Amino acid sequence: MSLSADSTSFPPPALLFDLDGTLIDSVYQHVLAWREALSDFGLDVAIWRLHRRIGMSGGLFVTALRRELGGTLTDEQVAELTEAHAQAYERLKPTVLPLPGARELLAELTEQQVDWAIATSGLFRAAGTALKLLNLPEDTPMVTRDQVRRAKPDPDLFLTAAARINVDIRHAVVVGDSVWDLLAARRAGALGVGLLSGGYGRDELERAGAYRVYSDPADLLAHLDEVGIRQR
Amino acid sequence: MSLSADSTSFPPPALLFDLDGTLIDSVYQHVLAWREALSDFGLDVAIWRLHRRIGMSGGLFVTALRRELGGTLTDEQVAELTEAHAQAYERLKPTVLPLPGARELLAELTEQQVDWAIATSGLFRAAGTALKLLNLPEDTPMVTRDQVRRAKPDPDLFLTAAARINVDIRHAVVVGDSVWDLLAARRAGALGVGLLSGGYGRDELERAGAYRVYSDPADLLAHLDEVGIRQR
Repeated sequence: MSLSADSTSFPPPALLFDLDGTLIDSVYQHVLAWREALSDFGLDVAIWRLHRRIGMSGGLFVTALRRELGGTLTDEQVAELTEAHAQAYERLKPTVLPLPGARELLAELTEQQVDWAIATSGLFRAAGTALKLLNLPEDTPMVTRDQVRRAKPDPDLFLTAAARINVDIRHAVVVGDSVWDLLAARRAGALGVGLLSGGYGRDELERAGAYRVYSDPADLLAHLDEVGIRQR
Repeated sequence: MSLSADSTSFPPPALLFDLDGTLIDSVYQHVLAWREALSDFGLDVAIWRLHRRIGMSGGLFVTALRRELGGTLTDEQVAELTEAHAQAYERLKPTVLPLPGARELLAELTEQQVDWAIATSGLFRAAGTALKLLNLPEDTPMVTRDQVRRAKPDPDLFLTAAARINVDIRHAVVVGDSVWDLLAARRAGALGVGLLSGGYGRDELERAGAYRVYSDPADLLAHLDEVGIRQR
Protein backbone atom coordinates (compact mmCIF):
# COMPACT_ATOMS: atom_id res chain seq x y z
CA MET A 1 0.00 0.00 0.00
CA SER A 2 2.94 2.32 0.54
CA LEU A 3 3.68 2.24 -3.18
CA SER A 4 0.17 3.41 -3.92
CA ALA A 5 0.43 6.14 -1.30
CA ASP A 6 3.74 7.28 -2.80
CA SER A 7 2.40 7.46 -6.30
CA THR A 8 -0.71 9.37 -5.34
CA SER A 9 1.43 11.89 -3.46
CA PHE A 10 3.54 12.71 -6.54
CA PRO A 11 3.40 16.52 -6.43
CA PRO A 12 2.14 18.69 -9.31
CA PRO A 13 5.08 20.24 -11.14
CA ALA A 14 6.54 23.66 -10.53
CA LEU A 15 7.29 25.69 -13.66
CA LEU A 16 10.65 27.38 -14.34
CA PHE A 17 10.42 29.88 -17.20
CA ASP A 18 13.01 31.28 -19.51
CA LEU A 19 12.30 34.97 -20.24
CA ASP A 20 13.34 36.13 -23.76
CA GLY A 21 11.28 34.38 -26.43
CA THR A 22 9.32 32.50 -23.78
CA LEU A 23 7.47 35.21 -21.85
CA ILE A 24 8.44 38.36 -23.78
CA ASP A 25 8.80 38.79 -27.55
CA SER A 26 12.39 40.04 -27.54
CA VAL A 27 14.46 37.45 -29.43
CA TYR A 28 14.50 39.17 -32.81
CA GLN A 29 15.48 42.49 -31.22
CA HIS A 30 18.36 40.73 -29.42
CA VAL A 31 19.41 39.15 -32.71
CA LEU A 32 19.56 42.44 -34.58
CA ALA A 33 21.27 44.13 -31.63
CA TRP A 34 24.04 41.50 -31.79
CA ARG A 35 24.21 41.97 -35.55
CA GLU A 36 24.70 45.70 -35.09
CA ALA A 37 27.27 45.34 -32.32
CA LEU A 38 29.31 42.84 -34.33
CA SER A 39 29.08 44.87 -37.49
CA ASP A 40 30.51 47.91 -35.67
CA PHE A 41 33.49 45.66 -34.89
CA GLY A 42 33.85 44.75 -38.54
CA LEU A 43 32.59 41.24 -37.82
CA ASP A 44 30.00 40.01 -40.28
CA VAL A 45 28.17 36.93 -39.06
CA ALA A 46 25.04 35.69 -40.85
CA ILE A 47 22.01 36.66 -38.80
CA TRP A 48 20.41 33.20 -38.54
CA ARG A 49 23.57 31.98 -36.81
CA LEU A 50 23.18 34.70 -34.18
CA HIS A 51 19.52 33.72 -33.79
CA ARG A 52 20.48 30.12 -33.03
CA ARG A 53 22.93 31.26 -30.33
CA ILE A 54 20.52 33.53 -28.47
CA GLY A 55 19.66 32.22 -25.02
CA MET A 56 23.16 30.98 -24.29
CA SER A 57 25.12 32.94 -21.75
CA GLY A 58 26.69 36.01 -23.35
CA GLY A 59 30.11 34.56 -22.57
CA LEU A 60 29.40 31.27 -24.38
CA PHE A 61 27.79 33.21 -27.20
CA VAL A 62 30.95 35.17 -27.73
CA THR A 63 33.09 32.04 -27.34
CA ALA A 64 31.04 30.40 -30.08
CA LEU A 65 31.52 33.45 -32.28
CA ARG A 66 35.21 33.43 -31.55
CA ARG A 67 35.37 29.87 -32.76
CA GLU A 68 33.50 30.70 -35.95
CA LEU A 69 35.68 33.73 -36.53
CA GLY A 70 38.93 31.89 -35.84
CA GLY A 71 39.78 33.13 -32.35
CA THR A 72 40.48 36.74 -33.15
CA LEU A 73 38.70 38.45 -30.24
CA THR A 74 40.55 39.64 -27.12
CA ASP A 75 38.85 39.70 -23.70
CA GLU A 76 38.68 43.46 -23.90
CA GLN A 77 36.93 43.27 -27.27
CA VAL A 78 34.47 40.74 -25.83
CA ALA A 79 33.58 43.19 -23.05
CA GLU A 80 33.16 46.03 -25.56
CA LEU A 81 31.04 43.82 -27.77
CA THR A 82 28.76 42.85 -24.89
CA GLU A 83 28.32 46.50 -23.98
CA ALA A 84 27.64 47.46 -27.63
CA HIS A 85 24.95 44.77 -27.77
CA ALA A 86 23.34 46.09 -24.58
CA GLN A 87 23.25 49.61 -26.02
CA ALA A 88 21.81 48.49 -29.37
CA TYR A 89 19.18 46.41 -27.57
CA GLU A 90 18.26 49.38 -25.40
CA ARG A 91 17.24 51.28 -28.56
CA LEU A 92 15.11 48.37 -29.83
CA LYS A 93 13.56 47.59 -26.44
CA PRO A 94 10.54 49.89 -26.82
CA THR A 95 9.21 47.48 -29.49
CA VAL A 96 9.28 44.50 -27.09
CA LEU A 97 5.89 43.20 -25.92
CA PRO A 98 4.74 40.30 -23.77
CA LEU A 99 4.09 37.13 -25.77
CA PRO A 100 0.44 36.16 -26.24
CA GLY A 101 -0.90 34.56 -23.08
CA ALA A 102 2.20 35.20 -20.96
CA ARG A 103 0.46 37.38 -18.38
CA GLU A 104 -2.59 35.13 -18.30
CA LEU A 105 -0.50 31.97 -17.92
CA LEU A 106 1.45 33.32 -14.95
CA ALA A 107 -1.72 34.68 -13.35
CA GLU A 108 -3.42 31.30 -13.75
CA LEU A 109 -0.48 29.46 -12.19
CA THR A 110 -0.50 31.83 -9.23
CA GLU A 111 -4.28 31.42 -8.93
CA GLN A 112 -3.88 27.62 -8.99
CA GLN A 113 -1.11 27.87 -6.36
CA VAL A 114 1.42 26.27 -8.71
CA ASP A 115 4.98 27.32 -7.85
CA TRP A 116 6.86 29.09 -10.63
CA ALA A 117 9.96 31.21 -11.18
CA ILE A 118 11.89 32.88 -14.00
CA ALA A 119 15.48 31.92 -14.91
CA THR A 120 17.11 34.05 -17.60
CA SER A 121 20.51 34.32 -19.29
CA GLY A 122 19.85 38.07 -19.32
CA LEU A 123 21.22 40.50 -16.77
CA PHE A 124 19.54 41.82 -13.63
CA ARG A 125 19.45 45.36 -15.02
CA ALA A 126 17.16 44.16 -17.82
CA ALA A 127 14.85 42.32 -15.45
CA GLY A 128 12.86 45.31 -14.18
CA THR A 129 11.54 46.17 -17.63
CA ALA A 130 10.43 42.59 -18.19
CA LEU A 131 8.57 42.47 -14.87
CA LYS A 132 6.70 45.66 -15.78
CA LEU A 133 5.78 44.29 -19.22
CA LEU A 134 4.40 41.18 -17.56
CA ASN A 135 2.57 43.09 -14.79
CA LEU A 136 4.60 41.24 -12.19
CA PRO A 137 5.61 42.50 -8.73
CA GLU A 138 9.26 43.28 -7.98
CA ASP A 139 9.55 40.33 -5.62
CA THR A 140 8.76 37.81 -8.38
CA PRO A 141 11.22 34.91 -8.04
CA MET A 142 13.71 35.52 -10.85
CA VAL A 143 17.30 34.35 -11.28
CA THR A 144 19.48 36.31 -13.71
CA ARG A 145 22.80 35.66 -15.42
CA ASP A 146 24.78 37.70 -12.89
CA GLN A 147 23.46 35.65 -9.96
CA VAL A 148 24.97 32.33 -11.03
CA ARG A 149 28.39 31.20 -12.11
CA ARG A 150 27.45 29.69 -15.45
CA ALA A 151 24.44 30.34 -17.66
CA LYS A 152 22.62 28.03 -20.10
CA PRO A 153 23.22 25.40 -21.32
CA ASP A 154 24.71 24.83 -17.87
CA PRO A 155 22.00 23.92 -15.34
CA ASP A 156 22.88 26.56 -12.71
CA LEU A 157 20.08 29.03 -13.56
CA PHE A 158 17.32 26.45 -13.29
CA LEU A 159 18.81 24.78 -10.20
CA THR A 160 19.05 28.13 -8.46
CA ALA A 161 15.51 29.07 -9.48
CA ALA A 162 14.16 25.78 -8.13
CA ALA A 163 16.04 26.27 -4.87
CA ARG A 164 14.71 29.81 -4.54
CA ILE A 165 11.11 28.59 -4.56
CA ASN A 166 11.93 25.48 -2.48
CA VAL A 167 11.10 23.04 -5.23
CA ASP A 168 12.77 19.71 -6.02
CA ILE A 169 14.20 20.14 -9.53
CA ARG A 170 13.00 16.62 -10.39
CA HIS A 171 9.44 17.89 -10.01
CA ALA A 172 10.05 21.01 -12.08
CA VAL A 173 9.22 21.63 -15.72
CA VAL A 174 11.48 24.05 -17.56
CA VAL A 175 9.68 26.13 -20.22
CA GLY A 176 11.89 27.71 -22.88
CA ASP A 177 12.10 28.66 -26.55
CA SER A 178 15.70 27.67 -27.29
CA VAL A 179 17.65 24.43 -27.41
CA TRP A 180 19.90 25.87 -24.67
CA ASP A 181 16.96 25.91 -22.25
CA LEU A 182 16.14 22.31 -23.03
CA LEU A 183 19.73 21.12 -22.79
CA ALA A 184 20.08 22.91 -19.44
CA ALA A 185 16.81 21.35 -18.28
CA ARG A 186 18.09 17.85 -19.01
CA ARG A 187 21.37 18.48 -17.22
CA ALA A 188 19.41 19.83 -14.27
CA GLY A 189 17.22 16.71 -14.23
CA ALA A 190 13.99 18.55 -15.05
CA LEU A 191 11.52 17.98 -17.85
CA GLY A 192 11.67 20.58 -20.63
CA VAL A 193 8.78 22.07 -22.54
CA GLY A 194 9.54 24.00 -25.74
CA LEU A 195 7.78 27.06 -27.14
CA LEU A 196 7.98 28.04 -30.82
CA SER A 197 7.69 31.72 -29.93
CA GLY A 198 11.44 32.32 -30.09
CA GLY A 199 11.58 31.28 -33.73
CA TYR A 200 13.24 27.86 -33.45
CA GLY A 201 11.63 24.99 -35.36
CA ARG A 202 9.62 22.33 -33.51
CA ASP A 203 12.07 19.65 -34.54
CA GLU A 204 15.06 21.50 -33.10
CA LEU A 205 13.30 21.69 -29.74
CA GLU A 206 12.18 18.07 -29.82
CA ARG A 207 15.67 16.88 -30.69
CA ALA A 208 17.04 18.86 -27.77
CA GLY A 209 14.76 16.81 -25.56
CA ALA A 210 11.49 18.74 -25.30
CA TYR A 211 8.86 16.61 -23.57
CA ARG A 212 6.23 18.66 -25.40
CA VAL A 213 6.23 21.72 -27.73
CA TYR A 214 3.62 24.51 -27.78
CA SER A 215 3.31 27.62 -29.93
CA ASP A 216 3.48 30.20 -27.18
CA PRO A 217 2.41 30.84 -23.57
CA ALA A 218 -1.27 31.03 -24.64
CA ASP A 219 -1.02 27.57 -26.19
CA LEU A 220 0.66 26.17 -23.07
CA LEU A 221 -2.06 27.74 -20.91
CA ALA A 222 -4.68 25.92 -23.01
CA HIS A 223 -2.88 22.60 -22.46
CA LEU A 224 -1.69 22.82 -18.86
CA ASP A 225 -3.23 19.43 -18.10
CA GLU A 226 -0.74 17.84 -20.51
CA VAL A 227 2.12 18.86 -18.23
CA GLY A 228 0.32 17.71 -15.11
CA ILE A 229 -1.42 20.86 -13.93
CA ARG A 230 -5.15 20.36 -13.49
CA GLN A 231 -7.86 22.87 -12.74
CA ARG A 232 -8.62 22.79 -9.06
CA MET B 1 20.35 1.94 -77.21
CA SER B 2 18.08 4.93 -77.52
CA LEU B 3 17.24 4.60 -73.81
CA SER B 4 20.91 4.73 -72.94
CA ALA B 5 21.42 7.71 -75.23
CA ASP B 6 18.48 9.48 -73.56
CA SER B 7 19.76 8.86 -70.07
CA THR B 8 23.28 10.01 -70.81
CA SER B 9 21.87 13.21 -72.33
CA PHE B 10 19.98 14.13 -69.16
CA PRO B 11 21.03 17.78 -68.82
CA PRO B 12 22.74 19.27 -65.75
CA PRO B 13 20.24 21.26 -63.71
CA ALA B 14 19.63 24.96 -63.93
CA LEU B 15 19.35 26.78 -60.59
CA LEU B 16 16.50 29.13 -59.69
CA PHE B 17 17.27 31.18 -56.58
CA ASP B 18 15.06 32.91 -54.11
CA LEU B 19 16.61 36.23 -52.99
CA ASP B 20 15.84 37.22 -49.35
CA GLY B 21 17.38 34.74 -46.91
CA THR B 22 18.88 32.75 -49.78
CA LEU B 23 21.35 35.14 -51.43
CA ILE B 24 21.13 38.20 -49.16
CA ASP B 25 20.83 38.31 -45.37
CA SER B 26 17.63 40.37 -45.20
CA VAL B 27 14.99 38.16 -43.57
CA TYR B 28 15.32 39.47 -40.02
CA GLN B 29 15.16 43.07 -41.23
CA HIS B 30 11.97 42.27 -43.16
CA VAL B 31 10.53 40.62 -40.06
CA LEU B 32 11.16 43.63 -37.82
CA ALA B 33 9.93 45.99 -40.57
CA TRP B 34 6.61 44.10 -40.64
CA ARG B 35 6.51 44.18 -36.85
CA GLU B 36 6.94 47.95 -36.88
CA ALA B 37 4.38 48.51 -39.65
CA LEU B 38 1.77 46.35 -37.89
CA SER B 39 2.45 47.93 -34.52
CA ASP B 40 1.80 51.40 -36.00
CA PHE B 41 -1.62 50.02 -36.99
CA GLY B 42 -2.24 48.85 -33.45
CA LEU B 43 -1.84 45.23 -34.56
CA ASP B 44 0.35 43.15 -32.28
CA VAL B 45 1.42 39.87 -33.86
CA ALA B 46 4.15 37.74 -32.25
CA ILE B 47 7.36 38.17 -34.24
CA TRP B 48 8.07 34.48 -34.89
CA ARG B 49 4.74 34.24 -36.70
CA LEU B 50 5.81 37.07 -39.02
CA HIS B 51 9.12 35.29 -39.56
CA ARG B 52 7.35 32.11 -40.69
CA ARG B 53 5.27 34.09 -43.23
CA ILE B 54 8.18 35.91 -44.86
CA GLY B 55 8.74 34.81 -48.44
CA MET B 56 5.06 34.52 -49.27
CA SER B 57 3.65 37.17 -51.54
CA GLY B 58 2.84 40.36 -49.61
CA GLY B 59 -0.82 39.80 -50.50
CA LEU B 60 -0.92 36.30 -49.06
CA PHE B 61 1.07 37.47 -46.06
CA VAL B 62 -1.55 40.05 -45.28
CA THR B 63 -4.37 37.58 -45.99
CA ALA B 64 -2.81 35.22 -43.48
CA LEU B 65 -2.57 38.03 -40.94
CA ARG B 66 -6.17 38.97 -41.60
CA ARG B 67 -7.17 35.43 -40.79
CA GLU B 68 -5.19 35.43 -37.57
CA LEU B 69 -6.61 38.81 -36.60
CA GLY B 70 -10.19 37.87 -37.43
CA GLY B 71 -10.66 39.63 -40.77
CA THR B 72 -10.50 43.19 -39.58
CA LEU B 73 -8.33 44.77 -42.32
CA THR B 74 -9.81 46.69 -45.26
CA ASP B 75 -8.10 46.72 -48.68
CA GLU B 76 -7.05 50.30 -48.06
CA GLN B 77 -5.43 49.34 -44.77
CA VAL B 78 -3.64 46.48 -46.49
CA ALA B 79 -2.15 48.94 -49.02
CA GLU B 80 -1.10 51.31 -46.21
CA LEU B 81 0.41 48.42 -44.28
CA THR B 82 2.43 47.26 -47.28
CA GLU B 83 3.75 50.78 -47.80
CA ALA B 84 4.57 51.15 -44.09
CA HIS B 85 6.56 47.90 -44.26
CA ALA B 86 8.46 49.15 -47.32
CA GLN B 87 9.38 52.36 -45.51
CA ALA B 88 10.46 50.59 -42.34
CA TYR B 89 12.55 48.14 -44.36
CA GLU B 90 14.18 51.02 -46.23
CA ARG B 91 15.59 52.27 -42.90
CA LEU B 92 16.95 48.82 -41.98
CA LYS B 93 18.31 48.06 -45.46
CA PRO B 94 21.79 49.54 -44.87
CA THR B 95 22.47 46.59 -42.50
CA VAL B 96 21.74 43.98 -45.20
CA LEU B 97 24.73 42.04 -46.53
CA PRO B 98 25.17 39.20 -49.02
CA LEU B 99 25.03 35.77 -47.36
CA PRO B 100 28.35 33.92 -47.05
CA GLY B 101 29.30 32.39 -50.38
CA ALA B 102 26.47 33.96 -52.39
CA ARG B 103 28.71 35.94 -54.74
CA GLU B 104 31.13 33.05 -55.09
CA LEU B 105 28.37 30.53 -55.79
CA LEU B 106 26.82 32.60 -58.57
CA ALA B 107 30.24 33.35 -60.07
CA GLU B 108 31.09 29.63 -60.05
CA LEU B 109 27.81 28.71 -61.77
CA THR B 110 28.44 31.32 -64.45
CA GLU B 111 32.01 30.05 -64.83
CA GLN B 112 30.71 26.48 -65.19
CA GLN B 113 28.12 27.65 -67.73
CA VAL B 114 25.25 26.47 -65.52
CA ASP B 115 22.07 28.43 -66.23
CA TRP B 116 20.63 30.28 -63.25
CA ALA B 117 18.11 32.99 -62.45
CA ILE B 118 16.60 34.77 -59.43
CA ALA B 119 12.87 34.60 -58.59
CA THR B 120 11.74 36.76 -55.66
CA SER B 121 8.49 37.65 -53.90
CA GLY B 122 10.02 41.11 -53.49
CA LEU B 123 9.29 44.06 -55.74
CA PHE B 124 11.29 45.25 -58.74
CA ARG B 125 12.19 48.52 -56.99
CA ALA B 126 14.09 46.51 -54.36
CA ALA B 127 15.95 44.44 -56.93
CA GLY B 128 18.60 46.98 -57.89
CA THR B 129 20.05 47.14 -54.39
CA ALA B 130 20.27 43.36 -54.24
CA LEU B 131 22.10 43.16 -57.57
CA LYS B 132 24.66 45.70 -56.34
CA LEU B 133 25.18 43.77 -53.08
CA LEU B 134 25.80 40.62 -55.09
CA ASN B 135 28.07 42.31 -57.65
CA LEU B 136 25.68 41.29 -60.43
CA PRO B 137 25.04 43.14 -63.70
CA GLU B 138 21.69 44.84 -64.33
CA ASP B 139 20.75 42.30 -66.99
CA THR B 140 20.88 39.38 -64.52
CA PRO B 141 17.80 37.22 -65.15
CA MET B 142 15.49 38.08 -62.25
CA VAL B 143 11.73 37.77 -61.90
CA THR B 144 10.04 39.92 -59.25
CA ARG B 145 6.63 39.90 -57.59
CA ASP B 146 5.23 42.60 -59.87
CA GLN B 147 6.06 40.62 -63.01
CA VAL B 148 3.79 37.65 -62.27
CA ARG B 149 0.17 37.28 -61.28
CA ARG B 150 0.69 35.22 -58.15
CA ALA B 151 3.74 34.92 -55.91
CA LYS B 152 4.94 31.99 -53.77
CA PRO B 153 3.72 29.46 -52.80
CA ASP B 154 2.17 29.62 -56.30
CA PRO B 155 4.63 28.38 -58.92
CA ASP B 156 4.45 31.42 -61.24
CA LEU B 157 7.72 33.04 -60.18
CA PHE B 158 9.80 29.92 -60.76
CA LEU B 159 8.00 28.98 -63.99
CA THR B 160 8.58 32.48 -65.36
CA ALA B 161 12.23 32.43 -64.28
CA ALA B 162 12.79 29.08 -66.00
CA ALA B 163 11.13 30.35 -69.16
CA ARG B 164 13.25 33.48 -69.14
CA ILE B 165 16.46 31.44 -69.29
CA ASN B 166 14.97 28.86 -71.68
CA VAL B 167 15.15 26.01 -69.20
CA ASP B 168 12.72 23.12 -68.76
CA ILE B 169 11.38 23.49 -65.21
CA ARG B 170 11.71 19.71 -64.75
CA HIS B 171 15.47 20.15 -65.03
CA ALA B 172 15.57 23.08 -62.64
CA VAL B 173 16.50 23.09 -58.95
CA VAL B 174 14.85 25.76 -56.84
CA VAL B 175 17.06 27.06 -54.01
CA GLY B 176 15.26 28.82 -51.17
CA ASP B 177 15.22 29.41 -47.41
CA SER B 178 11.48 29.23 -46.74
CA VAL B 179 8.82 26.55 -46.93
CA TRP B 180 7.02 28.76 -49.48
CA ASP B 181 9.92 28.37 -51.91
CA LEU B 182 9.85 24.60 -51.53
CA LEU B 183 6.08 24.32 -51.85
CA ALA B 184 6.20 26.51 -54.98
CA ALA B 185 9.03 24.35 -56.35
CA ARG B 186 6.94 21.20 -55.97
CA ARG B 187 3.92 22.77 -57.63
CA ALA B 188 6.18 23.92 -60.47
CA GLY B 189 7.57 20.41 -60.86
CA ALA B 190 11.14 21.32 -59.89
CA LEU B 191 13.36 19.87 -57.20
CA GLY B 192 13.80 22.12 -54.18
CA VAL B 193 16.94 22.67 -52.13
CA GLY B 194 16.62 24.39 -48.75
CA LEU B 195 19.05 26.77 -47.04
CA LEU B 196 19.03 27.37 -43.28
CA SER B 197 20.20 30.96 -43.78
CA GLY B 198 16.68 32.42 -43.51
CA GLY B 199 16.25 31.04 -40.00
CA TYR B 200 13.84 28.16 -40.62
CA GLY B 201 14.70 24.82 -39.05
CA ARG B 202 16.04 21.96 -41.19
CA ASP B 203 13.01 19.84 -40.43
CA GLU B 204 10.56 22.50 -41.62
CA LEU B 205 12.37 22.63 -44.96
CA GLU B 206 12.58 18.85 -45.28
CA ARG B 207 8.91 18.43 -44.49
CA ALA B 208 8.08 20.98 -47.17
CA GLY B 209 9.84 18.69 -49.62
CA ALA B 210 13.48 19.81 -49.73
CA TYR B 211 15.55 17.34 -51.69
CA ARG B 212 18.58 18.49 -49.70
CA VAL B 213 19.27 21.18 -47.06
CA TYR B 214 22.47 23.25 -46.74
CA SER B 215 23.47 25.95 -44.26
CA ASP B 216 23.95 28.79 -46.71
CA PRO B 217 25.21 29.52 -50.26
CA ALA B 218 28.79 28.72 -49.23
CA ASP B 219 27.72 25.27 -48.04
CA LEU B 220 25.79 24.65 -51.27
CA LEU B 221 28.84 25.75 -53.28
CA ALA B 222 30.93 23.15 -51.44
CA HIS B 223 28.38 20.43 -52.31
CA LEU B 224 27.32 21.31 -55.86
CA ASP B 225 28.02 17.75 -57.00
CA GLU B 226 25.18 16.56 -54.74
CA VAL B 227 22.68 18.47 -56.87
CA GLY B 228 24.21 17.26 -60.12
CA ILE B 229 26.67 20.01 -60.97
CA ARG B 230 30.18 18.69 -61.52
CA GLN B 231 33.41 20.55 -62.02
CA ARG B 232 34.15 20.67 -65.72
